[in-house]
Amino acid sequence: MKTIKTWSKLALVGLTATLVACGGSEKAEDTAKVEKQVEVINWKMVTTWPKNFPGLGTGAEGLAKSITEMSGGRLNVKVYAAGELVPALEIFDAVSRGTAQMGHGGAFYWKGKVPASQFFSAVPFGFTAQEMNSWLHNGGGLELWEEIYEPFNLIPMAAGNTGVQMGGWFNKEINSLDDFQGLKMRLPGLGGEVLKKVGGTPVNLPGGEIFTALQTGTIDATEWVGPYNDLAFGLHKVAKFYYYPGWHEPGSTMEALFNKDAFEALPKDLQLIVRAATRQANAVMLDEFTARNNAALETLVNEHNVILKQFPKEVFSALKKASAETLDEVAAADPMSQKVYNSFKDFSKKVRAWHEVSERAYINARADN
Amino acid sequence: MKTIKTWSKLALVGLTATLVACGGSEKAEDTAKVEKQVEVINWKMVTTWPKNFPGLGTGAEGLAKSITEMSGGRLNVKVYAAGELVPALEIFDAVSRGTAQMGHGGAFYWKGKVPASQFFSAVPFGFTAQEMNSWLHNGGGLELWEEIYEPFNLIPMAAGNTGVQMGGWFNKEINSLDDFQGLKMRLPGLGGEVLKKVGGTPVNLPGGEIFTALQTGTIDATEWVGPYNDLAFGLHKVAKFYYYPGWHEPGSTMEALFNKDAFEALPKDLQLIVRAATRQANAVMLDEFTARNNAALETLVNEHNVILKQFPKEVFSALKKASAETLDEVAAADPMSQKVYNSFKDFSKKVRAWHEVSERAYINARADN
Repeated sequence: MKTIKTWSKLALVGLTATLVACGGSEKAEDTAKVEKQVEVINWKMVTTWPKNFPGLGTGAEGLAKSITEMSGGRLNVKVYAAGELVPALEIFDAVSRGTAQMGHGGAFYWKGKVPASQFFSAVPFGFTAQEMNSWLHNGGGLELWEEIYEPFNLIPMAAGNTGVQMGGWFNKEINSLDDFQGLKMRLPGLGGEVLKKVGGTPVNLPGGEIFTALQTGTIDATEWVGPYNDLAFGLHKVAKFYYYPGWHEPGSTMEALFNKDAFEALPKDLQLIVRAATRQANAVMLDEFTARNNAALETLVNEHNVILKQFPKEVFSALKKASAETLDEVAAADPMSQKVYNSFKDFSKKVRAWHEVSERAYINARADN
Repeated sequence: MKTIKTWSKLALVGLTATLVACGGSEKAEDTAKVEKQVEVINWKMVTTWPKNFPGLGTGAEGLAKSITEMSGGRLNVKVYAAGELVPALEIFDAVSRGTAQMGHGGAFYWKGKVPASQFFSAVPFGFTAQEMNSWLHNGGGLELWEEIYEPFNLIPMAAGNTGVQMGGWFNKEINSLDDFQGLKMRLPGLGGEVLKKVGGTPVNLPGGEIFTALQTGTIDATEWVGPYNDLAFGLHKVAKFYYYPGWHEPGSTMEALFNKDAFEALPKDLQLIVRAATRQANAVMLDEFTARNNAALETLVNEHNVILKQFPKEVFSALKKASAETLDEVAAADPMSQKVYNSFKDFSKKVRAWHEVSERAYINARADN
């Protein structure tokens, strides 16, 4: 009896292809030997998230599961939390060189390598989730993102969104711009640059160090994500005022990264499965954050006596002006950033004009008495 | 040489499964005969949309293509425009009895059969697209939708969203509630019931009859979708004022319908492919409407001299009050509608509380100077 050793055996969900095993020079059997066997491709997914990290990490895990199951096990994706295979901030390089075939994180992490990447995660006073998705998929955004990652042998896709985040945790009230003078706040990325412009001191700390830094006074304030994640971190134990809205991250996009060679080596149907599973993950995360933030916010306010405050209008105006200046500077620093920013600004003007008569007009009319 | 006749031959994109054909009592061949063969399932998708109808019809066509391609041709979906296989408003029955295995339309069409279905398409002063998706997928909405369609042997899924629509086309200004008295307006569904409450006369007309009805004075006003679709219909040629926002359809959800037996007969991987392709289509449509409405609106205003107007606050308040009364009445009419409405109201309260400090606070702060 011959066996075909290069094929792995797999209890394949649903695939009906049947292998008829032939008996070398023996008498062949009339009854087909039903074994479900196909080539299995094994992929590693490295992420910037701790294991089971709510929303973001679980979103990455859900994406891997979707790809594996939709492919009937032909493309098997194993997830590695931050540090398990490579450290969080090395996933870009790991996927680029093929150590892993895909990754899940946020584009803001790569600004040192690719300054223009910052426009694909969180832009102060930039797009909401709906606007970002529309720019990426119908406004030329994704093509630009692909262009800036191409030299790194990477293909990017949007793979999750938090929606509008919170403005952050403070131990004093923010009544005017003066209150930002000298304020040491954990605020990475473009938001941090803006804080610097209005007199504050941005500090970059990984999530795991925020609580202690705020408790010991190493920092005066911090932002993280929103109620659902912030409650889990216990930030209400070390800060009193919870400010809104998150001007610095109005619709933070998560990214899936793919090694270009690995992706292009997939048969066409698996490529489309990966794309659809990622687009699904992009929606799944936003739906989850939208549904879960309120309960966490109620717990923070009603059970932990957190004081919910809105930034004053004057502060907002100053932050908005500083944001525009910051984005102009980032764009001026390299031609690709300028090209991306031009597309971003152009789409922003148009989609905001439309949302003036649709989304914004509606939610304000609904809220009025 | 035996052949396995029940399997159809298919040039299958990417599937690497190989059939080794055995020679009955003849000497078996050492070299495997490489043929790519799997069972092909053919599905019909009936829709409520004319062929190539922008956004809605093209969304349904994109969904069929995705399923076919992601399945590597194992599940082949052929689309029928309204009237090609069954009339638009008979797709619910056609999919229920299995004449077609799936359909694409809007749940508001079935209120005569399933009153509670109205909560799954467009609710006056109800959810935006983001809120609707969150209720469906993380707030218990989809489970209720499945429950009300179960007696019809149908499985529903969200399969597209227009975002906030426009308030409609008028030939006189709407300055107060008096201007609605006796106004004959094409406004189907729950919005029509609300119009009746404030003194107007709702008229239900299919899309193809709206232009002539407005031109000949059979109706005084109409709503349709938004700039992208309304421009294509030429409504600016027969009406002067274009009102916003669309209080009656703030995030209209399109639905995919599946014959339960057909869906459950699919192997697990194909079921997941269908679900992900539909979730993808749900996002694709919203991204498209969000990106395209502005250009159409600019054309209407700048080239066709349409006058863009916002409903006055007093009118909005009255419509909102009438909407709440209408929904209470619809809910009181049958227990399932009440059950769905209770879930809808409960989620609405929570998600709107969250959006007060996130989406709404942000887009207002961004718009302020």
